[in-house]
Amino acid sequence: MRIGILGYGNLGQGVEFAIKDNLDAELVAVFTRREPSKIKINTPNVPIVKISEIADWKDKIDVLILCGGSATDLPVQTPEFAKLFNVVDSFDTHAKIPQHFAKVDEAAKSSNHIAVISVGWDPGLFSLARVYSNAVLPNGKDYTFWGKGVSQGHSDAIRRIKGVKNAKQYTIPVDTALEAVRSGSNPELTTRQKHTRECFVVLEDGADTAEVERQIKTMPNYFDEYDTTVHFITEEELQRDHSGLAHGGFVIRSGKTGQDKQHSHIVEFSLKLDSNPEFTSNVLVAYARAAYRLNKEGQAGCKTVLDIPPAYLSDKSVEELRAHYL
Amino acid sequence: MRIGILGYGNLGQGVEFAIKDNLDAELVAVFTRREPSKIKINTPNVPIVKISEIADWKDKIDVLILCGGSATDLPVQTPEFAKLFNVVDSFDTHAKIPQHFAKVDEAAKSSNHIAVISVGWDPGLFSLARVYSNAVLPNGKDYTFWGKGVSQGHSDAIRRIKGVKNAKQYTIPVDTALEAVRSGSNPELTTRQKHTRECFVVLEDGADTAEVERQIKTMPNYFDEYDTTVHFITEEELQRDHSGLAHGGFVIRSGKTGQDKQHSHIVEFSLKLDSNPEFTSNVLVAYARAAYRLNKEGQAGCKTVLDIPPAYLSDKSVEELRAHYL
Repeated sequence: MRIGILGYGNLGQGVEFAIKDNLDAELVAVFTRREPSKIKINTPNVPIVKISEIADWKDKIDVLILCGGSATDLPVQTPEFAKLFNVVDSFDTHAKIPQHFAKVDEAAKSSNHIAVISVGWDPGLFSLARVYSNAVLPNGKDYTFWGKGVSQGHSDAIRRIKGVKNAKQYTIPVDTALEAVRSGSNPELTTRQKHTRECFVVLEDGADTAEVERQIKTMPNYFDEYDTTVHFITEEELQRDHSGLAHGGFVIRSGKTGQDKQHSHIVEFSLKLDSNPEFTSNVLVAYARAAYRLNKEGQAGCKTVLDIPPAYLSDKSVEELRAHYL
Repeated sequence: MRIGILGYGNLGQGVEFAIKDNLDAELVAVFTRREPSKIKINTPNVPIVKISEIADWKDKIDVLILCGGSATDLPVQTPEFAKLFNVVDSFDTHAKIPQHFAKVDEAAKSSNHIAVISVGWDPGLFSLARVYSNAVLPNGKDYTFWGKGVSQGHSDAIRRIKGVKNAKQYTIPVDTALEAVRSGSNPELTTRQKHTRECFVVLEDGADTAEVERQIKTMPNYFDEYDTTVHFITEEELQRDHSGLAHGGFVIRSGKTGQDKQHSHIVEFSLKLDSNPEFTSNVLVAYARAAYRLNKEGQAGCKTVLDIPPAYLSDKSVEELRAHYL
């Protein structure tokens, strides 16, 4: 399967690495809005192409993996390029998924392509965990914990405070809350009980430390409902100790069965990721395989991870999967 | 969806309880090889029917859930009843799945029914975890741990030793092995390092304690490759303390990504179940829903959990799933 990458940031580079681990996949081109001569990629002999020329590649690519952001890139790009290619994106603005789906579905159906949206781990593998565990434990309660990992949105919110030069914010699940959930006691947990927030902040010269800390800890929605710790550090320390892209989390469903609901069950799915973008990229490539196969079967339209049989993600045949993985 | 249950043991009763938690499901009949008047079920006004009369129910049941055993019941029953009904079974003899699939597929296709085989947690949800995690981390290593829970096969093996009246054997995952896997170090683990075995044994009068213990610990395949602990107890203690049906386990894939494979990732799926049969029953009912829907769409043949899109298991619409679970 011939893969194109649109957008060469952390995610696009992750897809490039992932393709090397998937022997049935081949990278045929990287598309960019930047000046192609300014981009260096890791794979030899793969052209870097200006996005304005992408239509010329219509018959040379089986799946285009869209590696832009959910705020402004994907709402435009996914419907646009689903008219030319099978596409996969990692659109992760949960509240806007239904409207994104509708636009992409129309574009993909009109041109007989498959578009898989909202691929990654949340939405993505965590969504699968939620749907499977709800289906098999209808009488129960869901818990999702994120972290430990950097939240881009919360880091951005800190950087907008006057006097802040740079910042990174970690979301951290509270161990005692995780243990309470795993005990099967179906606890009611407040926002504060589930996660803590830890901030590493670099100040501008002369900024008011106490005032910045106060503004962070009282920021509505972002921090006021959490126990938040603020550390002031230098830019060098931030670059040295907080440039990592690790993330992860836990989806747990706790449910009861039996005549008198006397039996507890815990279904838990968790991820511990050294590199959030590289892991997401691997999920994108697996769903690119599914998109390619579904389209070869004559299917078209927008799909999510919930619509796709697991076997379509694997490079192994269904016979091999039944014999060795079932 | 109108459900029939064939076989009213622990699993059949579990399906009966599960149907009450699934509002779109209705139990319409329980079929049995035993004398129907000798069976009491928990749901009022549901007929208990001799298996010889099952063909009369052909148009009154949407899905028949087969609750027999994998050794002798299901290899015969699943192909036989797939000719009359959509069926779901929990066939769990891993090595014989391909031949079971072939027989069931032929029967189901010839009569335009859907048959879903090998549904439960292993095979079942654990198979899903293996296939998804392999697809998204092609460069990695799989680990499956079972327990803590009773292994029926190992308990039976102990009961066949001369001088043993009764026995229960627990398979227990080794915590340090689990932690080593979760560290991302991709350890090579021997059989002995992954699980221990704990046996609770009731002796016949006058049996040779030391000889029974020796025979257990040296039994080829079953115990010789494990660290095994043997406790001798009374029948009363066995009934009081070891009648539970708890089980569970862990499927972990540990993989690497990046230019120099410098990033580790851990994908973990785990179950902690108070009642193995009741949880399995709930999985059967979710896949009964999928079987019913697939057949209504005009599909026929044998399927496994690997062939079925996750959304088909849910009682919620795809629109609701996209809006709230994705």
